[in-house]
Amino acid sequence: MGTRGGIDVLVSEVGPRDGLQSIQRAMPTAAKHRWIAALAAAGLREIEVGSFVSPRLLPQMADCDEVVREARKIEGLTVLALAPNVKGAERGIAAGVHKLNFPVSASRAHSMKNIRMTPEEAIEQVRAARQLARPHGISIEVGISTAFGCSIEGAVSEDWVMQMAAALVEAGAESVGLSDTAGTANPAQVRRMFTRLRREIGERAGAAHFHNTRGQGLANVVAALDAGVTTFDASQGGLGGCPYAPGATGNIVTEDLVFLLESTGLRTGIDLDRLIAAREILADALPGEPLYGHVPAAGLPKGFAYAAGRPR
Amino acid sequence: MGTRGGIDVLVSEVGPRDGLQSIQRAMPTAAKHRWIAALAAAGLREIEVGSFVSPRLLPQMADCDEVVREARKIEGLTVLALAPNVKGAERGIAAGVHKLNFPVSASRAHSMKNIRMTPEEAIEQVRAARQLARPHGISIEVGISTAFGCSIEGAVSEDWVMQMAAALVEAGAESVGLSDTAGTANPAQVRRMFTRLRREIGERAGAAHFHNTRGQGLANVVAALDAGVTTFDASQGGLGGCPYAPGATGNIVTEDLVFLLESTGLRTGIDLDRLIAAREILADALPGEPLYGHVPAAGLPKGFAYAAGRPR
Repeated sequence: MGTRGGIDVLVSEVGPRDGLQSIQRAMPTAAKHRWIAALAAAGLREIEVGSFVSPRLLPQMADCDEVVREARKIEGLTVLALAPNVKGAERGIAAGVHKLNFPVSASRAHSMKNIRMTPEEAIEQVRAARQLARPHGISIEVGISTAFGCSIEGAVSEDWVMQMAAALVEAGAESVGLSDTAGTANPAQVRRMFTRLRREIGERAGAAHFHNTRGQGLANVVAALDAGVTTFDASQGGLGGCPYAPGATGNIVTEDLVFLLESTGLRTGIDLDRLIAAREILADALPGEPLYGHVPAAGLPKGFAYAAGRPR
Repeated sequence: MGTRGGIDVLVSEVGPRDGLQSIQRAMPTAAKHRWIAALAAAGLREIEVGSFVSPRLLPQMADCDEVVREARKIEGLTVLALAPNVKGAERGIAAGVHKLNFPVSASRAHSMKNIRMTPEEAIEQVRAARQLARPHGISIEVGISTAFGCSIEGAVSEDWVMQMAAALVEAGAESVGLSDTAGTANPAQVRRMFTRLRREIGERAGAAHFHNTRGQGLANVVAALDAGVTTFDASQGGLGGCPYAPGATGNIVTEDLVFLLESTGLRTGIDLDRLIAAREILADALPGEPLYGHVPAAGLPKGFAYAAGRPR
């Protein structure tokens, strides 16, 4: 399980799942192993390494069992994988994940397109998975997709999102976060929604998951920090997006997020030079795939100081 | 002069100055006229249209007198130009600017490289220019360059920046803002510095000028808004940077900034569709020049609402 020992903010790397599922070609399994090992060596303590969806739907994720087993060998790393349903949860439990991430969408239209279930059916999947996972000490995390708006439905009711969060906790989710799947969130909304979420479900309030579709990702991080969020999803090189939310390309860039956090004095435990070096594995394994990020291009500024010294 | 009638935040477009001075080739004067007119028609109320530097140093700015005279014909537009010294101020006054922007750098090394003056000498230029400008009702605005750090010197003393701000007000500057010339600022620093600035010089605390070198520009905007800043510089398409601050490329993108402000409920008076349409003038006049911006690429989200209805 992720320890907060010595860090203020947990950066949860989702590139191997959210990033790689959004591109057509498959990254070779051995390259995935190397990439995940390099990310962990840079100081990342939690990595979502893949998705237990049907290989027919996402062949890029067919090796998820093997990737989980290899990642589990890395000491101190919390290994997370996505499961869209009970069958996926069973695979994840068998492979030995520490945590399962369940996608539950607030938008009915997005939920049907993404997982072919209503939000209410998805919540029942969480309840069933929780029963299976509990004996193994595996926790269930949910990010509520389209929590800030949907590219199909437009605005999503904030009251409905809060009702879902409460229902998910009731169904057994250890943590419920909010995801800006369509990249439409703004800082005022982020501050308001995460404040409400904490009021609604207290310590079960989970991660912020922002896409950078409209360039607002790090602005939303600042607002979420103000609202007390301490876990952020991000993707190396900004890989990622959701194939069912048109235009929703790219998670926030891990490198730029870590720079923001460390330079504001928040410890992440992550070494930026080693993190940036890990991009080479991506570039080698996926030639021609665009990699984003301003800090990797500009470099660290003269006199840059980590929040608490450079992590070892 | 810029009116705050009906708006909450003033977006000051600096593309025709900060943007165009950073690229090698000159934009034809007629295209500058069209671009500035299109920006004003989109609702921008203040535009920095050029720089009264020596045409030998920046031939792209040689037509600044003519550009100012043409821009002055646009009703309701505040026409700003940069003057690096008294001679530039004289040209600006003769051309009929509403405001002069004086660059004064907190870093000695940057100041010498940029304007060949010490910070103290630059402050005396402000005093002399103020004497010339006052009878014409022209105000002097200063953005303190390298206020958050310098690519040559590294860290810059925050106390020194505050001393400079007070000295600039004493020398007659109507407004003193802070500029992240090197793109090293972080949200905590931005919040702290603008809070101090307001304590130091009260209502004379001016604009925030952020570069997006390390992707932190809009994150810094959120922090500046928290500290009470109500004027932001930005550049259409993210054109811009400082040729004397290596790697400091690109102001924050006007289009993405306006999206942030309007979607958080802050009125700018700017119509995003018309603003995005103005990019075509840039693309036509400067073929091949990279234009940045996430909102122009992704479009407005379904159900997007302006803070107070779409500006007419």
